[in-house]
Amino acid sequence: MAENLPPIPRVPEDDYSPRAVAARRSLATGVTGRALPHLAGEPVPAADARGNVENLIGFAQVPVGLAGPLAVETSAGSREVYVPMATTEGAMVASYSRGMKALRAGRTWARVLSNCLSQHPVLVYAGAEEALAAARLAGAERAELERRTASITTHGRLIEVRPEPVGRRLVLRLGFETGDAIGINMAAHAAELVSAYVAERTGALERYVHGEDVEKRANARAFVEGRGRTVVCETTIPREALQRVLRVAPADLVRIHETYRLGFARLGTQNQLVQSANGLSAVFLATGQDVAYVTESATGTLDFAETPAGDLFASAHLPSLLVGTVGGGTGQGTAAECLDLLGVRGDGGANPFAEILAATVLAGDLSLLASFCTHEFVAAHERLGRNRPGAPERER
Amino acid sequence: MAENLPPIPRVPEDDYSPRAVAARRSLATGVTGRALPHLAGEPVPAADARGNVENLIGFAQVPVGLAGPLAVETSAGSREVYVPMATTEGAMVASYSRGMKALRAGRTWARVLSNCLSQHPVLVYAGAEEALAAARLAGAERAELERRTASITTHGRLIEVRPEPVGRRLVLRLGFETGDAIGINMAAHAAELVSAYVAERTGALERYVHGEDVEKRANARAFVEGRGRTVVCETTIPREALQRVLRVAPADLVRIHETYRLGFARLGTQNQLVQSANGLSAVFLATGQDVAYVTESATGTLDFAETPAGDLFASAHLPSLLVGTVGGGTGQGTAAECLDLLGVRGDGGANPFAEILAATVLAGDLSLLASFCTHEFVAAHERLGRNRPGAPERER
Amino acid sequence: MAENLPPIPRVPEDDYSPRAVAARRSLATGVTGRALPHLAGEPVPAADARGNVENLIGFAQVPVGLAGPLAVETSAGSREVYVPMATTEGAMVASYSRGMKALRAGRTWARVLSNCLSQHPVLVYAGAEEALAAARLAGAERAELERRTASITTHGRLIEVRPEPVGRRLVLRLGFETGDAIGINMAAHAAELVSAYVAERTGALERYVHGEDVEKRANARAFVEGRGRTVVCETTIPREALQRVLRVAPADLVRIHETYRLGFARLGTQNQLVQSANGLSAVFLATGQDVAYVTESATGTLDFAETPAGDLFASAHLPSLLVGTVGGGTGQGTAAECLDLLGVRGDGGANPFAEILAATVLAGDLSLLASFCTHEFVAAHERLGRNRPGAPERER
Amino acid sequence: MAENLPPIPRVPEDDYSPRAVAARRSLATGVTGRALPHLAGEPVPAADARGNVENLIGFAQVPVGLAGPLAVETSAGSREVYVPMATTEGAMVASYSRGMKALRAGRTWARVLSNCLSQHPVLVYAGAEEALAAARLAGAERAELERRTASITTHGRLIEVRPEPVGRRLVLRLGFETGDAIGINMAAHAAELVSAYVAERTGALERYVHGEDVEKRANARAFVEGRGRTVVCETTIPREALQRVLRVAPADLVRIHETYRLGFARLGTQNQLVQSANGLSAVFLATGQDVAYVTESATGTLDFAETPAGDLFASAHLPSLLVGTVGGGTGQGTAAECLDLLGVRGDGGANPFAEILAATVLAGDLSLLASFCTHEFVAAHERLGRNRPGAPERER
Repeated sequence: MAENLPPIPRVPEDDYSPRAVAARRSLATGVTGRALPHLAGEPVPAADARGNVENLIGFAQVPVGLAGPLAVETSAGSREVYVPMATTEGAMVASYSRGMKALRAGRTWARVLSNCLSQHPVLVYAGAEEALAAARLAGAERAELERRTASITTHGRLIEVRPEPVGRRLVLRLGFETGDAIGINMAAHAAELVSAYVAERTGALERYVHGEDVEKRANARAFVEGRGRTVVCETTIPREALQRVLRVAPADLVRIHETYRLGFARLGTQNQLVQSANGLSAVFLATGQDVAYVTESATGTLDFAETPAGDLFASAHLPSLLVGTVGGGTGQGTAAECLDLLGVRGDGGANPFAEILAATVLAGDLSLLASFCTHEFVAAHERLGRNRPGAPERER
Repeated sequence: MAENLPPIPRVPEDDYSPRAVAARRSLATGVTGRALPHLAGEPVPAADARGNVENLIGFAQVPVGLAGPLAVETSAGSREVYVPMATTEGAMVASYSRGMKALRAGRTWARVLSNCLSQHPVLVYAGAEEALAAARLAGAERAELERRTASITTHGRLIEVRPEPVGRRLVLRLGFETGDAIGINMAAHAAELVSAYVAERTGALERYVHGEDVEKRANARAFVEGRGRTVVCETTIPREALQRVLRVAPADLVRIHETYRLGFARLGTQNQLVQSANGLSAVFLATGQDVAYVTESATGTLDFAETPAGDLFASAHLPSLLVGTVGGGTGQGTAAECLDLLGVRGDGGANPFAEILAATVLAGDLSLLASFCTHEFVAAHERLGRNRPGAPERER
Repeated sequence: MAENLPPIPRVPEDDYSPRAVAARRSLATGVTGRALPHLAGEPVPAADARGNVENLIGFAQVPVGLAGPLAVETSAGSREVYVPMATTEGAMVASYSRGMKALRAGRTWARVLSNCLSQHPVLVYAGAEEALAAARLAGAERAELERRTASITTHGRLIEVRPEPVGRRLVLRLGFETGDAIGINMAAHAAELVSAYVAERTGALERYVHGEDVEKRANARAFVEGRGRTVVCETTIPREALQRVLRVAPADLVRIHETYRLGFARLGTQNQLVQSANGLSAVFLATGQDVAYVTESATGTLDFAETPAGDLFASAHLPSLLVGTVGGGTGQGTAAECLDLLGVRGDGGANPFAEILAATVLAGDLSLLASFCTHEFVAAHERLGRNRPGAPERER
Repeated sequence: MAENLPPIPRVPEDDYSPRAVAARRSLATGVTGRALPHLAGEPVPAADARGNVENLIGFAQVPVGLAGPLAVETSAGSREVYVPMATTEGAMVASYSRGMKALRAGRTWARVLSNCLSQHPVLVYAGAEEALAAARLAGAERAELERRTASITTHGRLIEVRPEPVGRRLVLRLGFETGDAIGINMAAHAAELVSAYVAERTGALERYVHGEDVEKRANARAFVEGRGRTVVCETTIPREALQRVLRVAPADLVRIHETYRLGFARLGTQNQLVQSANGLSAVFLATGQDVAYVTESATGTLDFAETPAGDLFASAHLPSLLVGTVGGGTGQGTAAECLDLLGVRGDGGANPFAEILAATVLAGDLSLLASFCTHEFVAAHERLGRNRPGAPERER
C-alpha cells in the first residue's frame, strides 16, 4: 500500500483556471523529470507526423486529465503513477480516480500472462483434399517459415503455426512475439511471406493475407485464445476501505455483478467488463496508441468475491490488449510525454504499461459499479458533466 | 457524380513540409468559410474543457489528415466533403481517400433508417411472479412514464417501453429519441426516473439503472435491434472505374468477401465490416465524439454484388452508430472546427453526419479489400508507414 | 409440498427384470388411467406414421425410464407427475429423479410468460430505398396481412409484423400465436402468403420464406426476444433438504455457478443451462416432439441465490421452448401414451407441458451441479452406466 | 457416380400399407445381410436397456424412413447406403432423399479431419499467481498425466493438455483420442484424475471436473477448435443434373446462401448449416446415438460456388460431430440394426459413419435451399405432412 505520491491538486473554486492546470502540470513534470511542452500547448511539428498520417492539415486537441495516483505491482516492480486520460466525457476521470483510491487500500497486482500477436491468412483451394495437403505442408515446413520470417525483422518472431482447414479453405493461424511494439506491420509482412510461400507450393487459387480478420473487432477467438497481451489484475480491498471510498460492501458488488452477468449473457458480447472502453480509449489516446484497437482490447471478464475475512477480492482479465511503447504514434509529441509520465516509454515498457492499463480498467469498473449500487451515477454526471453556467440541460 | 471539389493538394517532395500542410489547410478553410486556428496549433483554452474532463493538465495532440473529397446523397441533400481523420496509423487516410475516389465514380446514397437510444435498467425481485406483475405495471403506466421523463428534457423523448422479464428480474427496455445529441446523459437520467418509479410501486429488491449494460460494447442485441442511429450506405460503381481506381473487378470483391464472411462466422463477431473501427475512430477523434462508442458503432455488415450490367453494387449497414453534433465534446476547439469542415455542426447535423460516416466506412472497406485482392496492402504500409529516413524497420 | 404420488418402485437385485419393469408400468397405468400397450412392446401400426415420415421401414425403439415424481405449480394448477424420459445415457434418469426429489422439498412454480412463434421471410431489392419503401408498405398493410393469414387456419393467428430493413434486404419479422401446436407448418404457410403479398406489391427481386433462418439452431435473437414458449421455473429449497437430498449447501451451488458462468461467457453460447439438452431430448423423444428443436429449446439461463433464511433460491429461464401437445408426432403410439402419462395430451396441454419441462430442466441442473460439487458425477456414471457383466470398460 | 443400389420402392396408392413397408424392409434386409427384427416390431428385451436408462418402463417407438441411396467416398472407401432416419416431421425424409439423388450426380467426398474429444476441468485458486503456478505445473507434468490416464482405459488416450489461466481460475483444456466411441465417460474419468492430481499439488480451493462446460451446447470454442470429429463433405454437381433433380441453377443456390449468411450473422449462431439438426437428429435416433449431442453436432458452415464449368461446388464443414459406433446405445435393438444397415457398426465404423452423416447433412441442405428457391417448401409440407383423410388442417 505505497502512499508516496501526493494527491492530485484541485482548486475547488475553479478547477479549469490556469492556476489549477499549472499546479497539476507542475506535479506531472516533477514526477516525469522532464518538461511536457506539447501537453501545455506547444504545437507538435508537422514533420513529426510523417509515417502516421497522410494529407496532414493539423492536430486535433483533446483534453487530458490526470487520474490517480495508481499503485500496482507490475512485472517491472512496484509502480505508482498518475494516469493521463484524454477524453471529453465529463465525470469519467473522476470515476477512475476514485477507483484508484480504492485500489490503493489493498495490494493490487497485475501481470501479462502471454504475448502473441495472431494473424490468419487464408488460402482457398479447389477442394478440401488440396486444403488438407496444404495444411500438412505448412506443418512440415515450419522451420523454413520461421527462417524466412526471421529475415524481415529483428524485433519480432514467428512462434506459432497452426493450419486449420475449413472446407476448401486453409486458415493459417500464425502467432508472433513482438517485443514492445504491437508489431502489426511486421506480422502482416511475415504473414504475407508465409502465406505466399505455402500458396505457391500448393497451388492455392486465392490467397488473402488477413482472410480470417480478427483485427480491430471483438471476437470469440481472441476472447478464448488471447491476442496481443493477455493481462490480469487483481486486488483485495479491505471491507472498511471499500465502504469508506466507494460506499459499498463487498456483497453489494458481488450482487450487482450477478445482474450484469445475466445481461452480458443475453447480449452475446465478449466485453464483459463494465467501462473498459472508456478507460482504455482515454489512455490509448493520451499515449499515442491506436484507438481502433479498443474494440478488441476492451473485451474481458470481471470476478468479484467476498473473502472469508469479509473483504473484497476483485479481478479483471483482459485477453487481448493491444498496446506498444515503441513504434506507431508513441515516439513524439504528447504521446511521448504521456508515456514518460507513466514511466513506460520505449523498450521494456510494454508489459508494465499493459499491467497499468489492466489496473486502470479494474479501478474504473469498481468505481462505476459502486456508483450504480449507490445510485450516484446519474447525479455525478449531472454535476460534473454540466459544462457551462447557464446551460440548463446538456446532452452528450 | 458531383465533381466540384478539387483534389487534396499534395507535395510529392515533402508532404509534411509547412508549405504542404498550409496548402491543405487553406483548402479546408476555403471550404469551411471560417478560420481553423486550433487545428493549426493555437492551444484550446483550458476553460473550454469544463464539463468534459476532470483534473485537466493539457491537451493531447493527434495528427489530422484529410480524406476525400467524398460525395454522398444524404437526408439533407447532396454533400461533398473532405473528411478529417485523426490517426497515427500510416497509410490509413490514403486508403480511405482512395475508396472515396472509387465512390465518386457512382452515385453513393446513405440514409439514417432509425434513431433510438436504448437503455436497459434492471429490477430484481424475490421471484418471477413479482417480476411479471412489475412488467404488467410498467406496460400499463407507459403514459405516466412518458410524462415524467418529458419533464427533464426538451431535447429527448421516451418512445419505447418494453418490459422483458427474465426469471426474477425485469429488464426495462427503454428507447429514446435524442435529436442531434447522443443523449446518453438525458437517457440515463430518464432511466433513473422510470426505473425508480416502477421499483417503488412494485417492491423491487434491487435496482440498477444500466443493469443490462449495452453501453460501449459490441453486442448481439444492438446488432439486431439497432441502437442510436441505424444507417445504410450503398453505391453502384461502374466496372471500369472500379478497375481503374481500385484495380479489381466486381467479382474479385465478391470473392474475397466470401472468405471474409466465413472468417466472421467463425469469429462470432458483430463487426462484420472490415476496417470500420479505423475510419470511425479517426473521424470520431477529429470531431469530438466519444471514441469509446466505436466499440458499438463499428459493428455492421457489408454486401457486395455484381450487377447484371457487370458493375459493383456495394453496401454497408451500421445498426448502432452513436454520434452527435451537439453536446459532449463537439462544441469547442478542433472538434468544432472539424464538424464545421464537414458542414454538420449543431442542430440538424447528426443525420447527415451519420450518413457521411457510413459512406466513409464503405469507402474504407472497399479500398482495403481491394488492396488485399491485389496484395498491395503490405507494400502500402511499408511505403507510407515508414516514418523516418534511416529507420530500416518500423513497428507499430 | 404435495407428496401424494408414491416413489417409483425399484428392484435392487435386478431392476431390468420383467417384474421390475411391470411394477413400474403398473404404476404408470394406474396414474394414466389407461393402458399403455405400445410402451409395453405392442408395435405401432405402420399407418399411424402417415404424414410423419416417408419410405417407412419400421420403428426405432428407445428405452424409456421414469423420473419423479415431480410436483410443480403450473398455469393449469398443481401437477404431480412421473416424467417419461427416452434415452440411452446411463445415470441420466437417476440424476433427474434426484433433482425432482430436491424440488419436492420446496414449492416449485413454473409459468409460460409468452407464446409467439416467429418466422423471418426475407425480400431482396435492388437497393435500400426499395427495401425501405417495402418496409413502409408492410407496416401499413398489417390489417390486410392479418386478414389473409386468418383465412388459412383457425388454430393460429398473426400477432406481430415488424419489418427490419438491412441494406437492400427486408427482414419481415412475423409472430404467430399457435395454440397447443408448435404451428410451424401453419406459420410457414402464412409467411409464404405474407411475403408473397409484400413482394408482389414492391417489386422484390428475390424472396425467401425462411430467409433469416432461426429454425432449429441456438441463436442470439431467440435468446433475447423469445421464440415459441418462454418459460420460467423457480423454487426455494430448504437448506436442510438440499443437504439431505443433494449433499450440498446453497453456497456450494452459488459458487460452482460462478465458475460455470465464466465458462459460458468464454464459450459464446446461448445455452447457459447445464444439462438441458439431456432432459429435453429425453422427454421430447418420449412424447413425440421434434427432437431437432432441442437445439433451440435447450437455451436459457440459471439463477441461484442463498436466501436471507439460508435456503436455496433456484430458477431456470427458457426463452424458446418449442413444444406442442397436438399435431406433429403427438397423436399416436408411445407419444400419445407418454403425453397421457403426463396428463397434457391435446388441447390445453401445451402450457402445463412446457411448465413441466422447465421444472424438469431445473431438477436436472440442480442435481448435476450438486454432483459436480461433491465429485460424485464420475462415480455415478461408472456405476450406473456399466451395462454388462464382464465388460471391464464401457465407453459411450 | 456409383449407381448400383436400386431406388427405394414406393407404392403410390398407399405407401404406408404393410406391402409397401415390407418391400422396403426386404430391400434393407438384403443390403444388410441380416434380419432386422426389432425395426419390424419385435420388442427389444428389457435387459438390453441395462446401463442405458434407469426406472425402465418400456420403449418409445419412433417411425423410421429410408433416405437414399447415398453414395460417398469415405476414408474407408466408396460407400453406397440407404440412410435410416427416425422422425415424425413429414416431408423430411423425402427432402433428404432428393438431396442424395442430387449428390449421386457428382462425386461426393467426405473425410474426418480430426478426432479429439475435449474436456475442460476448472481449478479455482486464491489468486492469479497461484493459478499461474498451477498452469506451469500442469504443463511440466504432462508425461505423468498421460501415464495416469493411460491406466484407466485401453480405448482412449490423452493427446492434449493446455492450461489456460483466466484470472484466479485455471481452465485445463484436455484432449482425448477416443477411437470408435464418443468416449465421454472415459474422458470424464480421465479429467477427474488429471484435475485432482493438479489440484492436490497446487492447493486449489475448488475443483470442477466439467467447469468450462462445452458439453451438449453450441459454442464458439468448439466451432473454431473442433470437438469430437471434425468432418468435411464436398461435391461438384453438374449443372444439368442440379437443374433436373433440384430444379435450380448453381447461381440460385449461391444467391440464396448470400441471404442466409446475412441472417446467420445477425443471429449470432454457430449453426450456419440449414437443416443439419433435422438430419442428424433423425439418424442419431435411428442409430442409438445420444441425440442431446445434436446441439453441438449440428453446428458448422456451408460453402457454395459456381465452378468455371458452370457446375455447382458444394461443401459442408462440421467441426464438432459427436458420434460413436461402439458403446452407448449402439449395441442392441434397432440401433444395432440401423448401424448394420449403414455398414458401420463396431470397431472402425465411426469415421465412415461421420462421413456418411456429413454427406447426409449436405444432401439435406442442398434439397431444402433448392426448395426455398423454387418456393416448393410449403407445398411439399402441405402435401406430405397432411397425415389423415378428413383432417382439413394439420399443425405440428
